[in-house]
Amino acid sequence: MTSEQTAGHTLGDVGEFGLIAQLVAHFPQGEHVLVGPGDDAALLRVKQGHVVVSSDLMVEGRHFRRVWASGYDVGRRAAAQNLSDINAMGGRAHSLTISLAAPADLPVAWALELAKGFSEECALVGASVVGGDITRAEEIVVAVTVLGAVAQAPVLRNGAAAGDVLAIAGRQGWAAGGLAVLGRGFRSPRVLVEAYRHPEPPYDAGPAAAAGGATAMIDISDGLLAEAGHLASASGVAIDVRTAELEVPEPLHAVAAATGADPVSFVLGGGDDHALLATFPAGTPLPTGFRAIGTVAEGQGVTVDGAPYAGAAGWTHF
Amino acid sequence: MTSEQTAGHTLGDVGEFGLIAQLVAHFPQGEHVLVGPGDDAALLRVKQGHVVVSSDLMVEGRHFRRVWASGYDVGRRAAAQNLSDINAMGGRAHSLTISLAAPADLPVAWALELAKGFSEECALVGASVVGGDITRAEEIVVAVTVLGAVAQAPVLRNGAAAGDVLAIAGRQGWAAGGLAVLGRGFRSPRVLVEAYRHPEPPYDAGPAAAAGGATAMIDISDGLLAEAGHLASASGVAIDVRTAELEVPEPLHAVAAATGADPVSFVLGGGDDHALLATFPAGTPLPTGFRAIGTVAEGQGVTVDGAPYAGAAGWTHF
Repeated sequence: MTSEQTAGHTLGDVGEFGLIAQLVAHFPQGEHVLVGPGDDAALLRVKQGHVVVSSDLMVEGRHFRRVWASGYDVGRRAAAQNLSDINAMGGRAHSLTISLAAPADLPVAWALELAKGFSEECALVGASVVGGDITRAEEIVVAVTVLGAVAQAPVLRNGAAAGDVLAIAGRQGWAAGGLAVLGRGFRSPRVLVEAYRHPEPPYDAGPAAAAGGATAMIDISDGLLAEAGHLASASGVAIDVRTAELEVPEPLHAVAAATGADPVSFVLGGGDDHALLATFPAGTPLPTGFRAIGTVAEGQGVTVDGAPYAGAAGWTHF
Repeated sequence: MTSEQTAGHTLGDVGEFGLIAQLVAHFPQGEHVLVGPGDDAALLRVKQGHVVVSSDLMVEGRHFRRVWASGYDVGRRAAAQNLSDINAMGGRAHSLTISLAAPADLPVAWALELAKGFSEECALVGASVVGGDITRAEEIVVAVTVLGAVAQAPVLRNGAAAGDVLAIAGRQGWAAGGLAVLGRGFRSPRVLVEAYRHPEPPYDAGPAAAAGGATAMIDISDGLLAEAGHLASASGVAIDVRTAELEVPEPLHAVAAATGADPVSFVLGGGDDHALLATFPAGTPLPTGFRAIGTVAEGQGVTVDGAPYAGAAGWTHF
């Protein structure tokens, strides 16, 4: 069946194999893909002697809502979230798999949009979609695995040392602002809603940080303070974030005013932008895209302007 | 928290990170794992210059039921299903990720059993569990990605040629018999129920087939005839299965008699044993574990004893 013939059809109508054939048409294969989708497994040429791998889940109602994000948007976000994990190691992704569990009444058009958005985001870093699975479920679950490579040693979470500078790359708090807007039934400021639907992870910043001497790095998916906490814990250090150094864009002030929130709380607590948080030895010129927002010291835990933070600092998954 | 302290607890009690810490304890890391679970991504040494990768989903109520299979059983089956995909390429798995979406009221003990079963099955081929994700959902979804390597060119689905011999390795129909038993509220014949809960994919047969000149191969997860159909379609040939060559173990005869079914239908239609179906040029000595069950000819489609098959020939996912 062609896409035109399935307009208005559901997954139950076209079946697993009918859908797979249509999805695969959205996935161009890079030169490193020796065997692509369609067999029991894909075969990838790996020249670098190693693979960086990460897996993530997105669940409808928890990580996205269909009224707030199209299939295309969810595809973009699912890819961005995973590509960002390789970015946070200082690497670049080259291959991904995407699996979809969904109700039989899901419109085929939604699944095709998901594939389109996913593929387009992957194309931003030149990565190929090489496989996946489709099955029926009560709710939509998108499972992604990403494979990539690093040009040198990966940047882990545990290398931060007292005296390092804490720096950030990419937009931060924008997606949280967009989500707050959508949650109240609004569609503007449009720039924030778009930031939520189409995060723009700083894909060049991860490799730049690795090349530029970063001692530790993590991507911000669960909130700046929560991720800073993971860095501090893994490295056995204390981290202080200085709010005066945080960029709080004008639209966030507008949303904060309308919702009675502190605009800085979006920046400190928000995830989903997939900014990178990294530490560098003091005096190291920060790579392009990074700006200093805090300091690393002996001790443990995360403080804001030298004091414990009282607001919401991220979210947990249970 | 230790496992003892969480006895009787749910995922909602211990939270995402509490559970991850406990799960990771079940996952020993092989020498090729340079960075294991706990960072944004894992880092694997890959000596072979390539990676074979596949992803699968298992959904509660569709691929398993908690009344019929323990967390340990589901873990074993989830691993087996994915390891089998690498086996079907003629390769061996070295690394897997496992992600779990589950309700907050899922007992921690169930998740730990899942990890235990998954890890034990992976250990059968020496593979390491290097990462994953956990999140809340309404129903349980287990998403797995497996990475592996082949010793020579992979065996694909599209290489079967007229004149080839069709051969099978591993138990076939046993798991389907076990599922039929469970579906009627019985627990015996126990050997079939155990075959459903703990499939025993012929992990040595895949590499043996590749070394022994197999022209095409697939693993039987959706039924022998359905998978034979995939082979025939991908290779552009016709396949005939001879029922006289099929092994129908005595317990299947007993189940068939009790349920009014044709015992051969379990062998032709059943999946979940993860047997391998392969084709070899006529005259090639079949590798250890394989037995001839049919022939390949010019044409298309699958026949049984030379005629179209009227029974259920597998299942689709929508």
